[in-house]
Amino acid sequence: MHKKKKGMVIKMSKKKIVVSLGHSALGYTTEAQRDAVRVTAKALADLVEEGYQLTITHSNGPQVSMIHKAMTELRRVYIDYTPAPMCVCSAMSQGYVGYDIQNTLRSELLGRGISKPVSTILTQVTVDPYDEAFYEPTKVIGRYMSKEDAEIEIKKGNYVREDQGKGFRRVVAAPRPIDIVEIEAIRALVNADQVVIACGGGGIPVIEQQHILKGASAVIEKDAVAAKLAADLNCDELIILTDVEYVYRDFGTEHQAPITSMTIAEAKASIAQEQFSEGTMLPKIEAAIAYLEKVPSGRALITCQSRVKEAVKGRTGTAITA
Amino acid sequence: MHKKKKGMVIKMSKKKIVVSLGHSALGYTTEAQRDAVRVTAKALADLVEEGYQLTITHSNGPQVSMIHKAMTELRRVYIDYTPAPMCVCSAMSQGYVGYDIQNTLRSELLGRGISKPVSTILTQVTVDPYDEAFYEPTKVIGRYMSKEDAEIEIKKGNYVREDQGKGFRRVVAAPRPIDIVEIEAIRALVNADQVVIACGGGGIPVIEQQHILKGASAVIEKDAVAAKLAADLNCDELIILTDVEYVYRDFGTEHQAPITSMTIAEAKASIAQEQFSEGTMLPKIEAAIAYLEKVPSGRALITCQSRVKEAVKGRTGTAITA
Repeated sequence: MHKKKKGMVIKMSKKKIVVSLGHSALGYTTEAQRDAVRVTAKALADLVEEGYQLTITHSNGPQVSMIHKAMTELRRVYIDYTPAPMCVCSAMSQGYVGYDIQNTLRSELLGRGISKPVSTILTQVTVDPYDEAFYEPTKVIGRYMSKEDAEIEIKKGNYVREDQGKGFRRVVAAPRPIDIVEIEAIRALVNADQVVIACGGGGIPVIEQQHILKGASAVIEKDAVAAKLAADLNCDELIILTDVEYVYRDFGTEHQAPITSMTIAEAKASIAQEQFSEGTMLPKIEAAIAYLEKVPSGRALITCQSRVKEAVKGRTGTAITA
Repeated sequence: MHKKKKGMVIKMSKKKIVVSLGHSALGYTTEAQRDAVRVTAKALADLVEEGYQLTITHSNGPQVSMIHKAMTELRRVYIDYTPAPMCVCSAMSQGYVGYDIQNTLRSELLGRGISKPVSTILTQVTVDPYDEAFYEPTKVIGRYMSKEDAEIEIKKGNYVREDQGKGFRRVVAAPRPIDIVEIEAIRALVNADQVVIACGGGGIPVIEQQHILKGASAVIEKDAVAAKLAADLNCDELIILTDVEYVYRDFGTEHQAPITSMTIAEAKASIAQEQFSEGTMLPKIEAAIAYLEKVPSGRALITCQSRVKEAVKGRTGTAITA
């Protein structure tokens, strides 16, 4: 929103937000994703229409897993090709998902009469090679494998974990994000009031060795990167979209109750009580806290895609503030 | 280059250039590419060091072909996956190549004490569905196939061409670029004096249908898009890097002679004499002309990577001006 007044450009400030999209916003196959992203684009366009300046980040689990498997199958047939390390697969997934989102969101906005550039910045995120996560990988990736395939992974130097009765899955380190390498490019587009898609899949994880950034065999928690992004951009809000409308207290028990608002202190107390499950809600709450500790005036919102338009108006979802 | 003076920001204008990288700047496999891009980054960093503001575009033939084959093999093994259309493979290739270039160029610049953001914008480029190229596909993609595989392609509705004695290759339409969809994002980064990688592989070809951009089964000539990009950004120069130091007159004959400079009129006369070979040099000359017709004050330069530093100083290469 720019208004010209006697030769001066006065910029009316919009509320800046980072929206973090979860698995359900995307798709497991190329066709499922095309359909899912159409629905996602409507929710995102609602926010643009409400006057928010959007930076979008997203998960990439199923997408990077698909690409990784494709690159593995390629080498079985065409033996000349060299392996595609995880950083390359991650970069491909940012291209794939970013394209689907920017293409579809642009159409959705134009359909509403809003002409606004939407683009994707390929993003690397540095991690600490001494992060304790590297000593005990915990992030489960890919589908279930047989014991034979698991043994092949172990021989390659990878970690696997057995889920009793279900099979084996590969696990990688989930180190904390240190720096978003392309932050200045993201910032320039945000300052130009454009919609930006960045840090897809938590960013391409890289380790800084002098001037060189080496791809790391890791996955950065996308909500942790969303928090970093929202803090770096000094955003007014961090919105984490997931499958549920609210964060719940005593989730899955007969006493379960939605939490409409929490302070950082209340959130930390609930974490201490092990209220939030490790693989799913806990990283979202931790991301909200990390963001609010950097931007105490901000608001973190956790809700589902179909309710986000109401949630930003304070009518639903879980709001966390300092 | 910004200088602060009594609270005013004075921007010293740099020469803006678009550099178009050919196949030899990248690689056929992930490892070959990592090595090739290190050499390419040195040539690009030389230009930044000389004070040029760089926008980089690149070919993606071998890369998109690798990804397309990988996605095909994936579906042979995991039947649940749906096909990856060419637009998706192209988006993945922009992620892959863009990551390699931005990562390596950043390191090369930092090693020279230059701290400058380098990032990739995923780019779509619109084409005309009535472009005559769609009626007679001419752009050869992928490796040679057997007659049996060629027949499978034909059954899928694709075009193939036989090279006598060598086998069959797939051909797709090479329509002219109409619009660079993400031009405003590219422009914002250029205006912020950042290095931008965009329009990789000629851009993801899309056809505009009302507000929707549908992926097209086509490949846009990357030099044609480079010319469009240089014109849209009103660049001072368009640099097309290829395998040879000069454009030659009577190339491949005993009379061959390097062309050091040409005007548009001279270039057109040489095209009429069929001086430039169709698949290789002709599209580069045509791109130079297209750019100069939009930016008559500009200069188009065709040379090889190892000589570009000398070429921008007018010491080698073929310079084309209006």
